[in-house]
Amino acid sequence: MLTIPERLAALRHEMQQHGFAACLILSADPHQSEYLPEHWQARQWLSGFSGSAGTLVVTPTFAGLWTDARYFLQAEQQLQATGIQLQKLSVPHTPEYVDWLQQQLAEGDVLSVDGASLSLALARLLRKKLSAKNIQLDTRFDLVDAIWHDRPRRPATPIFGFPDQFAGQSRRDKLAQLRHQLHLHQADYLLVNALDDIAWTLNIRASDVACNPFCVSFLVVGKKEIRWWVGSERLTDPLHAQLAADGVAAGDYDQLGSWLAALPENVQVLVDPATISTRLYEILGRSRSIELSSPVAAMKAIKNRTELSHLRQAMRKDGCALLRLYRWLEGRMPADPPTEAEIALQLDTFRREQGDYYGSSFDAIVGYGANGAIIHYKPEEASCARLKPEGLLLLDSGGQYLQGTTDITRTTALGEPTLPQKLHYTLVLKGHIALATALFPLGTGGAQLDTLARQPLWAHGLNYGHGTGHGVGFFLGVHEGPQRIAANAAAPGCQLPLQPGMLTSNEPGLYIEGAYGIRLENLILCVERVNNAFGQFLSFETLTLFPFDRKLIDVSLLTAAEMQWLDEYHQRVLEALSPMLTEAEQHWLAEQCRPLV
Amino acid sequence: MLTIPERLAALRHEMQQHGFAACLILSADPHQSEYLPEHWQARQWLSGFSGSAGTLVVTPTFAGLWTDARYFLQAEQQLQATGIQLQKLSVPHTPEYVDWLQQQLAEGDVLSVDGASLSLALARLLRKKLSAKNIQLDTRFDLVDAIWHDRPRRPATPIFGFPDQFAGQSRRDKLAQLRHQLHLHQADYLLVNALDDIAWTLNIRASDVACNPFCVSFLVVGKKEIRWWVGSERLTDPLHAQLAADGVAAGDYDQLGSWLAALPENVQVLVDPATISTRLYEILGRSRSIELSSPVAAMKAIKNRTELSHLRQAMRKDGCALLRLYRWLEGRMPADPPTEAEIALQLDTFRREQGDYYGSSFDAIVGYGANGAIIHYKPEEASCARLKPEGLLLLDSGGQYLQGTTDITRTTALGEPTLPQKLHYTLVLKGHIALATALFPLGTGGAQLDTLARQPLWAHGLNYGHGTGHGVGFFLGVHEGPQRIAANAAAPGCQLPLQPGMLTSNEPGLYIEGAYGIRLENLILCVERVNNAFGQFLSFETLTLFPFDRKLIDVSLLTAAEMQWLDEYHQRVLEALSPMLTEAEQHWLAEQCRPLV
Repeated sequence: MLTIPERLAALRHEMQQHGFAACLILSADPHQSEYLPEHWQARQWLSGFSGSAGTLVVTPTFAGLWTDARYFLQAEQQLQATGIQLQKLSVPHTPEYVDWLQQQLAEGDVLSVDGASLSLALARLLRKKLSAKNIQLDTRFDLVDAIWHDRPRRPATPIFGFPDQFAGQSRRDKLAQLRHQLHLHQADYLLVNALDDIAWTLNIRASDVACNPFCVSFLVVGKKEIRWWVGSERLTDPLHAQLAADGVAAGDYDQLGSWLAALPENVQVLVDPATISTRLYEILGRSRSIELSSPVAAMKAIKNRTELSHLRQAMRKDGCALLRLYRWLEGRMPADPPTEAEIALQLDTFRREQGDYYGSSFDAIVGYGANGAIIHYKPEEASCARLKPEGLLLLDSGGQYLQGTTDITRTTALGEPTLPQKLHYTLVLKGHIALATALFPLGTGGAQLDTLARQPLWAHGLNYGHGTGHGVGFFLGVHEGPQRIAANAAAPGCQLPLQPGMLTSNEPGLYIEGAYGIRLENLILCVERVNNAFGQFLSFETLTLFPFDRKLIDVSLLTAAEMQWLDEYHQRVLEALSPMLTEAEQHWLAEQCRPLV
Repeated sequence: MLTIPERLAALRHEMQQHGFAACLILSADPHQSEYLPEHWQARQWLSGFSGSAGTLVVTPTFAGLWTDARYFLQAEQQLQATGIQLQKLSVPHTPEYVDWLQQQLAEGDVLSVDGASLSLALARLLRKKLSAKNIQLDTRFDLVDAIWHDRPRRPATPIFGFPDQFAGQSRRDKLAQLRHQLHLHQADYLLVNALDDIAWTLNIRASDVACNPFCVSFLVVGKKEIRWWVGSERLTDPLHAQLAADGVAAGDYDQLGSWLAALPENVQVLVDPATISTRLYEILGRSRSIELSSPVAAMKAIKNRTELSHLRQAMRKDGCALLRLYRWLEGRMPADPPTEAEIALQLDTFRREQGDYYGSSFDAIVGYGANGAIIHYKPEEASCARLKPEGLLLLDSGGQYLQGTTDITRTTALGEPTLPQKLHYTLVLKGHIALATALFPLGTGGAQLDTLARQPLWAHGLNYGHGTGHGVGFFLGVHEGPQRIAANAAAPGCQLPLQPGMLTSNEPGLYIEGAYGIRLENLILCVERVNNAFGQFLSFETLTLFPFDRKLIDVSLLTAAEMQWLDEYHQRVLEALSPMLTEAEQHWLAEQCRPLV
C-alpha cells in the first residue's frame, strides 16, 4: 500500500519516462458522469482527497489540487503531509487550473491528460489556451493506470430490463425515433456516451454507479445495426434475446474504439462534444463526425403519460416516507435528538419500506443550523451535528423507485423560529410559489423563469448562489438536461424553451452563513395551459407532495393568491397521502395542512 | 427616369455580363446603420418599396422583396406592376431569403452581393448556407451603382464639435482609453465602423443621417496615429486644428481601403464582425484582424456625470413639450380634432421651442385606436387617422437636444375608457413599475429583467411582441447597444449584465389587434443601490418626467408599493416641471399628479 507521496513519486517517474512537463488528473470518466465509479477515481487515489469535485495537477516540482469552497476544509485536512497544495477555486466548476498551466509551463512543454476521460469540449478549451504559448497536449496515456496496481475493476452489476409498463415506451420505439434523427441529420450512426441516455434508450437499468441506476457502456445506433458496448457476459440470456429481437447486438466495452476506427471513411457519426471523449473523437476524426447535442437527452426530458402516472405514485410514497421521518424526529425530540447522519439513514429506511425502492437518488443533505448554510453539505457520521430543540433543519433528499426519481427539500423549525428566520423562509416560499404558479409563453427559457423565483429575495437585497431548477430523470439521474432554470443566460440549457412534459425542480433558497440555510424544493411538471391570440402559454403542475412548515410562514407577507395556492396545495397533499396513512398520521398531516388563516 | 421594370432589366443585364445567377440587394450601408442615407437606398430605388426594412433578390426570371408584417400592406401597394413579388417574412429581421436562395439556386451558381454594405457576420451566414450546395458568393461589385445614374451623393452636412461641457469627457481622454484597449488586446489599430461610435469618440456631430446626429465616416485609432476617413474638405479650419491638436488626421472616406491594404503584414487590427463590411475585412485579411465587439459601444453605454446632468435638463424640456402637446390636444377636442400626423408635427414644434433642439430622435409613432396596435406605425399625412373623443391614443416620440436624446411613450384615453382598456393599461403599468423598482444583483442581464415587465401580463395570458428596453445614446442614436432588455436569452445583448450608468428604455406594451395599443415608456438609469453580504445590488432611477393617464389606472389592481411608486413619481414630475410652466399649466399638471387615492 503506497503512501500519497509514494504515488506522486511513481507518477513523476512515469512523466519523466515520457518527457511530460505536467500531468492533469481530472475527476471524470469516459461518459462525463456526475458520479464516478471507483475505477475512475484516480484523482482520489493519487491525492487522498475524497470530495466529489477536484482536479489534480502534477509537475516534477509541484502538486496542486483545485476544488471549490464547499471542500476547502476537507481538502486541507486530507491533503496534510501529502505535499499537495490546495488551490482554491474562486468560481466553482471552472477550469481555473488551465490558467495556472498556461502561466507555469514553458514554451514547448508537453502536458499529459488521459484522453479516455477528457471530453472534447474541455480538450478544445485546453488546446486553445495552451497553444497560445506553444504548449502541447498529449492525450494518449493514462499514466495513473500504470502505477495503480490495485485499481478497482470497472463495475459490472446485474443488468435488468426496465419493463415497458414503467418506461411507457418500448426500446424498439425509442430506437426507431433515433433512427429518424439519423435521417434528419443525414448521418449513419449516433454515438451515445452518457450513461443515462443509454439506460433510457435501451430500457435497461443496473447499479454500476452510486445513486444512479446506470450501466457503464457505450451505445451506437446505426441505420442498420445497433451495438451496445457493454460486454456480452454481463447480459442474462433472456435480456440478450430481448435485445437481439430489437436488433441490438452486444459488444465489449473496450472494443468500441477499434470498431470506430474500422468504419469506412465516408460514414457520418453524430457525436455530442459535451460527452464524447477526446480519445474516441480522435479515432473517429473530424471528417466522420457531425457534432450535435444529444438527441436522446432532448427526448427523455419529455416524460410520457406512463412515466407521469408512475411518478405520481412515487410522489405519494415519498410524501409518506417524509411524513414518517418528521414524525419520528418529533418523537426523538427533545429527549433523544438524533444526529444529521442518523436522519439520513432513517429516511432511507422509511423510503425502502415504501417498496420498489433502489436507494437514494443522491447523498441526502441534512443540514442543521449553520450546516444548512453549506449548500452541498453531506453529514458524515463521525463529524456531523446532533440536533437540538431550536434552530432550523434543512433536509434535501430523494429516492430511486421503479416508479421514478424524487428530489425534495424542506426546511423546518425545531423550536420557536426567530423573526428573521420567518421573514427569510417566507421570502423563499414566495419565490417558490411564483415559479410554481407562473403562466408563461411557449419559448420562455430557464434564465427568464429564474427571475420569478428570485425576485422576492432580490427585493430585500438577498440572493442564493445556485440554480433554481434542474431536469430530473425517470428512475434515472436526479440531475439531467437539457433544460435548466438558473440565473445564467449564457448557458445553453437556460436558453432552451421549457416544453410540456419536462420535469424540473423548483428550489429557491437562502443561506445565512454561520446561522442557517433555507431551501424549499418540489418537482414541477411543465404543462400546456392557455392558447389564445397571444399564443400558447405554459405553466407548471407541482408533483411533489409534502406540506411546508407553517411555523415558519409569516402569513402577513403573503398575497391572497399565494395563500390560496398554499391552501390548495396542502389540501391536495392531504387528499393524496391520507389513504396511505394510519389514523394518527392522518391527524398529524391534517394539522399541517389546515388552512393558513 | 427609368421605371421599376426598366431598372430591373438593367440590373439583369449587368448580372448577365458578369455571369451571376442572382443578385441580393440589402437595406444596409457600410456602417450597418439603422437609418440609411439616400445614397445607400438602392433597394428602394430598384424596387419602389420605401419601407425601412426589406431585402430584394433578383434572378433572371424572378424578383422578390422580403419584408415583415408591418409593411405587408404598403409593400403590396408599392410593388404593384413592378414584377416584384412580396415575400412575407414569418419572423421579422431574419434572413429568410437565404433559405430561398439555397433552395432555388443550382450547384455552381454565383450570387452577387455588394461587399461594401454586407457585414462580415451576414457574409459568414450566407457562405455557410450556400456552400452546402456549392453556391459561390461574389462580393466584388455594386451592380446597382452601374445603372443608378442619378444616385444621390453621400451626405456631407456641416460637422460641428460637441463641446466638452456637454460630452463630459474630452476627445483626448476617450482616445487614450481606446489606446488602452489596444494595449489590452495586443493590437495596433482599432477600426471603428459604427457612426454613433465615431461621433462619441471624436465628440463631433453632423446631420448626415435622419434623426441621428451622425457624420458618415470611418475612424482608425492606432497606437501612434489616428485617422478619420471623412474627407478633409468637410472640416472647418477650427475643427481641423482641434482634431490635429488631439492627434487626429483626416483622410478621404474612399481611401480607407487602400490604407488598410498597405498596412504591414504583422499589424493586428481590432474589428467588430457585426459592423465591419466584408469588403474591408477581405482587404485586411484574417491574419491582420482580431475580432472584438466594439469597445466604443461598451464605453459610451456608461453615461458620465456631465451627460446625466444635462439629460435631467433634457427630460424637463421634454416633459414640458409633452404637457403642451396634451393641453393643445385637449383644446382641439372635441370640436376640431387633429390627425395623427398633425400631432407629430405639433409635438415637434413644442420640442423645438424648448431650445437646443436638433429634431426628433425617430419618426414619432402616433397611433389612434386600431393604429395603436401596429407596433411600428408611422402616420402619413395623406392616409392617417383623425382623432375622435373616444378610444386610446398611443404616442411614442423622442427628441434630439444638445442635452441628450429622449424617448417616451404615453397612452391616453380620449373618452371614458372601457373596463378591458383599464385592465390592460394597468397590467402594462404594473410591468413598467416592476422593472422601474427592481432591485437585482450585479451580473443580471436583460433577459432576466425582461421577465419582471412581462409577468403581470403573462399571468393573464397576455404578452407583447417586442423588447422591453434598448440602450439610448446621449445626443446620439435613440437605439444603441450593447445592453438590451428582451425575452431573448440567446441574444448576447440580453446576456450582458446591466451596469451602473447604463441608460435604457422601459417600455412594456400590449396590442389588441384592430382595437388599440398600449405602451408605457420611460428612460431608466442603472444605479448602485445596496452592497451587503449577498453582493452588490443595482436598481434603476427613472429619468423621464411625465405623468401617466390616471383615467386608465384601475387602482384596485395595484399593490400599496405600486401606488406609492406612482404617487412619488408624480410628485417628482410635478416638482421638476412646475418651475418651467405657466400657472395654468401648473394647475393642469398638479391635477394629473395628485395622489391616486
